[in-house]
Amino acid sequence: MFTRKRIVIALGGNALGNTLPEQMIAVKSTAKALCDLIEEGHQVVVVHGNGPQVGMINNAMAALSREDENQPNTPLSVCVAMSQAYIGYDLQNALREELRNRGFVRTPVVTVVTQVRVDENDPAFENPSKPIGRFLTKEVAEEQAKKYGHIMKEDSGRGYRRVVASPKPQEIVELDAINSLVDAGKIVITCGGGGIPVYLNKNHLKGCSAVIDKDFASCLLAKDLDADLLIILTAVEKVAINYGKENQEDLSDLTVEQAQKYADEGQFAPGSMLPKVQAAMDFASSKPGRTAMITLLEKAKEGIKGQTGTIIHN
Amino acid sequence: MFTRKRIVIALGGNALGNTLPEQMIAVKSTAKALCDLIEEGHQVVVVHGNGPQVGMINNAMAALSREDENQPNTPLSVCVAMSQAYIGYDLQNALREELRNRGFVRTPVVTVVTQVRVDENDPAFENPSKPIGRFLTKEVAEEQAKKYGHIMKEDSGRGYRRVVASPKPQEIVELDAINSLVDAGKIVITCGGGGIPVYLNKNHLKGCSAVIDKDFASCLLAKDLDADLLIILTAVEKVAINYGKENQEDLSDLTVEQAQKYADEGQFAPGSMLPKVQAAMDFASSKPGRTAMITLLEKAKEGIKGQTGTIIHN
Repeated sequence: MFTRKRIVIALGGNALGNTLPEQMIAVKSTAKALCDLIEEGHQVVVVHGNGPQVGMINNAMAALSREDENQPNTPLSVCVAMSQAYIGYDLQNALREELRNRGFVRTPVVTVVTQVRVDENDPAFENPSKPIGRFLTKEVAEEQAKKYGHIMKEDSGRGYRRVVASPKPQEIVELDAINSLVDAGKIVITCGGGGIPVYLNKNHLKGCSAVIDKDFASCLLAKDLDADLLIILTAVEKVAINYGKENQEDLSDLTVEQAQKYADEGQFAPGSMLPKVQAAMDFASSKPGRTAMITLLEKAKEGIKGQTGTIIHN
Repeated sequence: MFTRKRIVIALGGNALGNTLPEQMIAVKSTAKALCDLIEEGHQVVVVHGNGPQVGMINNAMAALSREDENQPNTPLSVCVAMSQAYIGYDLQNALREELRNRGFVRTPVVTVVTQVRVDENDPAFENPSKPIGRFLTKEVAEEQAKKYGHIMKEDSGRGYRRVVASPKPQEIVELDAINSLVDAGKIVITCGGGGIPVYLNKNHLKGCSAVIDKDFASCLLAKDLDADLLIILTAVEKVAINYGKENQEDLSDLTVEQAQKYADEGQFAPGSMLPKVQAAMDFASSKPGRTAMITLLEKAKEGIKGQTGTIIHN
């Protein structure tokens, strides 16, 4: 029997482009793929990454503080907040337009500025690993490292990028409001860039210099919203073992146990496929009936029908 | 009899400070004043201005595009979007904290990225009048005018500021979602900076280079949400006639007719008190029982009790 599902979808920040013109093109195909699911009666909640965008905004704020001595540099948490609106505005607009084009007259798409609580003692703060911003030459990277104390890492031969801490999400602060919107049938864009990273200091939520992994944030959100399906969109149609080798094998169906075994063998690249598979396993094992899928944006619709993608289930 | 009201509150962007450290202090006193009303059982919806903040963000994005040739300059509409999260994040946090400090365990404060439709033929586009950003010296203002084609105006002896078009708000695009949140008892921050200015081009909402007056946007929102009271917070406790003169007279109670008469006499400064009085008159005359109030942030609580402020009613 066909079931109308509650689906949390995690979109990659890299897929949204490095500049605003690139983003405005990217959101169109994103909107088409999301509307395909909405049109089939599914309830869709959207989480997106922000790696390139938050790096760009952080650079802009730093450029301003160089030009204007009255402007102190802007914390990364504030840049994450800004990236939520920078991306959300375009994405909600593209979704609204695509829905209207398909005859949906009421098009309730909404972006919620979302904070996500992390543990201030998360070991991730000792080991920055999440790349943000553009790829840089070695010289520019060294210059930025000296000027701002940024930590730079070489990224698989493609150049240098700033890396920041990526602590695990513990709690979605605005969950209550997100829940109300989803229950009221709105299409909600939330936890953008993994959410604004904050930790609790008595009653105060203090921003911290980090970017939360959007795959983990979307897993937490999917659990909290009691979603049926978590879809993690990425650059490949299926998860593979022996990736890039002669004996590469694409996987269509994985139990949590199998996925864990492959993860333990080091089959999935850290910072790339590994967190996606981990988030998928976490969601699929959190409650009976919950399933995760990893696939390409443009294959999401077929994936839901079981025609492609990698399904992870208990 | 004491009535629990639905109140839309418009906060000035200038009251939120020119820098992030200033903003973080400002939101604390704002949160206290808002919580005073919430504590008394009123339902509060918050709209804020963004004059200094959207100017700052626009400058940051311009500074980036000077440093990075791959980054084209960012449209003002996108900067308005970013300012909604830049301000909303701090404001929702301060509100949450103040509520918790007062024993509210569930503290559902939420910022909605909000687009507001304007008319692309609004005459305001021909006559930019809304000042944004910092006060500049004549030299710097002329330099920016040349470099970016910005229009600069001298502002009451305090220096030069960039001015942009300020078209009238016609429709709040995300109203449906805002309504759901307000009905569900959430404290909503919306229409920040007057809302992201967009106009309709078939099914596409196109951003435009403008900043909508937050007083007019809050008036439209108050009407749409069927609020009882619109409170416009400003730098004076009461609206006055003969302002700054020896015979200045503070007004406690104004009918729409009286207010219109004073407005026609030129008693209220354009771009300052005039739009506030106009928004107040518009709301008060839109339906029986609707009242507007203009006062200081820290006098809002007393104002609601009829002890101070200027009430505008039909």
